[in-house]
Amino acid sequence: MDKDEKGITAEKDEFSEWFAQLVIKTDLADYSEVSGSLVLKPVAYEIWEKIKNETDKEFKKLGIKNVYFPLLIPEKLLDKEKIHFKGFSPEVAWVTHAGETKLSERLAIRPTSEAIMYPSFSKWIRSYKDLPLKLNQWNNVLRWEFKHPIPFLRTREFLWNEGHTAYANKKEAEHESKEIINIYDKICRELLALPSLIGRKTEKEKFAGAEYTVSMEFYMPNGKAIQGPDFHHDGQNFAKAYDINFLDENGKKNYVYQNTFAITTRMLGVMFAVHSDEKGLILPPKIAVNKLSIIPIFSEKNKNKILKEARKIEKELKEFNPILDEREEYRPGFKFNEYELKGIPLRVEIGPKDIAKKQVVIVRRDSGKKKIVKTVKLKKQVEKLLIDIQKNLFKKAEKLLKDNLMEVRDFKSLESAIKNKKIALASLCESRECEDNLKFRTKGAKVLNIDEKKSTKDKMKNRKCVICGKKASYAVRIGKSY
Amino acid sequence: MDKDEKGITAEKDEFSEWFAQLVIKTDLADYSEVSGSLVLKPVAYEIWEKIKNETDKEFKKLGIKNVYFPLLIPEKLLDKEKIHFKGFSPEVAWVTHAGETKLSERLAIRPTSEAIMYPSFSKWIRSYKDLPLKLNQWNNVLRWEFKHPIPFLRTREFLWNEGHTAYANKKEAEHESKEIINIYDKICRELLALPSLIGRKTEKEKFAGAEYTVSMEFYMPNGKAIQGPDFHHDGQNFAKAYDINFLDENGKKNYVYQNTFAITTRMLGVMFAVHSDEKGLILPPKIAVNKLSIIPIFSEKNKNKILKEARKIEKELKEFNPILDEREEYRPGFKFNEYELKGIPLRVEIGPKDIAKKQVVIVRRDSGKKKIVKTVKLKKQVEKLLIDIQKNLFKKAEKLLKDNLMEVRDFKSLESAIKNKKIALASLCESRECEDNLKFRTKGAKVLNIDEKKSTKDKMKNRKCVICGKKASYAVRIGKSY
Repeated sequence: MDKDEKGITAEKDEFSEWFAQLVIKTDLADYSEVSGSLVLKPVAYEIWEKIKNETDKEFKKLGIKNVYFPLLIPEKLLDKEKIHFKGFSPEVAWVTHAGETKLSERLAIRPTSEAIMYPSFSKWIRSYKDLPLKLNQWNNVLRWEFKHPIPFLRTREFLWNEGHTAYANKKEAEHESKEIINIYDKICRELLALPSLIGRKTEKEKFAGAEYTVSMEFYMPNGKAIQGPDFHHDGQNFAKAYDINFLDENGKKNYVYQNTFAITTRMLGVMFAVHSDEKGLILPPKIAVNKLSIIPIFSEKNKNKILKEARKIEKELKEFNPILDEREEYRPGFKFNEYELKGIPLRVEIGPKDIAKKQVVIVRRDSGKKKIVKTVKLKKQVEKLLIDIQKNLFKKAEKLLKDNLMEVRDFKSLESAIKNKKIALASLCESRECEDNLKFRTKGAKVLNIDEKKSTKDKMKNRKCVICGKKASYAVRIGKSY
Repeated sequence: MDKDEKGITAEKDEFSEWFAQLVIKTDLADYSEVSGSLVLKPVAYEIWEKIKNETDKEFKKLGIKNVYFPLLIPEKLLDKEKIHFKGFSPEVAWVTHAGETKLSERLAIRPTSEAIMYPSFSKWIRSYKDLPLKLNQWNNVLRWEFKHPIPFLRTREFLWNEGHTAYANKKEAEHESKEIINIYDKICRELLALPSLIGRKTEKEKFAGAEYTVSMEFYMPNGKAIQGPDFHHDGQNFAKAYDINFLDENGKKNYVYQNTFAITTRMLGVMFAVHSDEKGLILPPKIAVNKLSIIPIFSEKNKNKILKEARKIEKELKEFNPILDEREEYRPGFKFNEYELKGIPLRVEIGPKDIAKKQVVIVRRDSGKKKIVKTVKLKKQVEKLLIDIQKNLFKKAEKLLKDNLMEVRDFKSLESAIKNKKIALASLCESRECEDNLKFRTKGAKVLNIDEKKSTKDKMKNRKCVICGKKASYAVRIGKSY
């Protein structure tokens, strides 16, 4: 393969250029004619389907049911919860005409569906017997950001799940937080091989309309943090705005307590960015559609014999969905590069010498390490190697995150940490002023979320706010973020 | 159950009222605050997921891959194929603003995705090696019809698959017609228990931009026809408009040949309408999520004993996803009505006498017939009955279609057939004038599609056009239609 034409020509350190090339050259996605919107090509879409199916299976175990609500939201509905409206209206795409007819009221393309779902919740929920109501939809949403779009990481349209649940009491509602974050965390860790920092958002950074937000924050190879899945406990905010009430066991009227939660196609971008390298994509085996390529190395003379053996191996390894590349117009080296570019976790090479010795050569995409394996032991070895690659990718990602998380005790160390593209763990007071100052003084870093682990709390109690020096309220993670 | 409150109060003959009540009272869907858009509630959405999964499995066998293209289409792209644009622009919802900013160009919410996909096809397809390209998406589309909306049958937003394929030559492209229609026909017949009339659309009725359209037409219990899944062969129309060309084996430049095809959420409505009755929904067992209900008939005295037995049965019949209704606050009669309303295919009743005799009572939802079954033979009987219900529903639907299909030889009989809410099989010439006249003179009937079966052709050759009396071109199905 001509590297200049098909391979990635940027180093991973030149992140923007490298990432843009990665996405396009590995055939994951393409730009479209609509600025800020992306075309998801088959490989990326298939990965999204896997995330969706696995997440959906877990949701169903919790009794969450799928529904579909309309794409368009009348402005007067969106406007009912004022903070929510204020949060989203600057990014709303408005439909004003149908055919030649001007509409009597503007319709928003859903940036999220609270405003269209909750009038129905209000109708459907009458008594405590209707609770909990646990609904979810897998759909597309649109947020017209004016910042520079980045494939997967920041696109105006994206795909996601939006879970919307209603409970009779706060305790039950809040308990769901753990259930849902556990699901998302499992998907990220076990499927995408991505560790994250989980915690509550500050008042400033929480979802527009929520009582509080729990987020999962990831560390990107360019030193920026990025928010992944999140969970919002809305308390009774929306219930009061949309009049979602019920009669409890004693016949008393009460407002419901609500949650919402989401995982989006952004996670594909985080996964591609964290694991991949200059040679191209690296995919965790569990998410990879094709887990290995088989490259027969043959000449005109021994072609038949070698292809026969390669096909036998293909059949034996069928469960791993192998790609057997029999093309004669390309040399093996070209094929090696191609499957490295596309992130196929394992490559099996088989040539005349290997056949003679009843062996094959296996090469790992993550480490590039070669291994000679006896054909009789091949399947077992492939299984083992795939598990090992999955583990190794997670470990690497965990090391990246840990190496770039730095505890700081004063503003000077915080400033230096941010300059060095770290996520800083710092003590902060609750005042909005300090949080605003923090952003200003660090030239753009913000609070990602609060570290609520007991060990952190214990370690950092009695510390002072790194901004004002007064008593701190909590330990927070601070970083520049997408 | 209080029939006036919860049951359906209209006869099936009063179709509009009956159907509206059916959809709402059986908890399939609900109206939303956006006129013409529907909320799909869990039962309806789960049925859609089944249709989707089964169809998708078949698509994958043909090598069709899923992708996702943006929701919004710039006006200048939509305008590239003039006939296509003219066909859809009267129904397009236009986005003109994002937040407070007026956009420099209007963006259409996709009514269908040719115009956003084909610029990418033009970029991706270079050589014959890139062909065939077989892509599909499962998404939402919006067509702002101004006619009165009807749940499922005519909604402004609906869910569908849109397949888009490109081939190097016409013959291969056209061959796909059979493959795809076979898949849709199998889904409709075997899953939804719905037979249809399959045939080519006339020039007048074909898809805007297609060379020809093959459609599946269904007969509704109110005497109207309705179009279901369709397949369009576009020839090189879009290829020329969007410049989708490739170099063939001889290095010669050629335009691709294209197809598109779709099945939509409308099919849920057709299925609900055809099979159901005044008692509520009737669902073919293969599409029903819960295939049976178990109603224990107990008093305070024998409660424990009977519930124990009922739970044993629930466990034994687990694969049919039974609903065991143990509620004490409702009487069995109330429960019978409820599951009849919801269309659960079988009801298993178990009371003290049944236990003594080691039997249960099974009641079919489709026929209302009761049967006493020995407990040891229960599972086998349930299996058999479910298969039988599925067959019976198909047979009934087939009879409805056949009984209402009437061959006519002249305009008078055609007119009478249409008046009597039949689909007429008539000979027609190809002239657009006759087709326009037909609609005018029958007060709104139209050509559904052409019957291209050899037996029909043979039988009806040498007949005259029922409108102009000149030589006919084909035998067509004519009816009033949604």
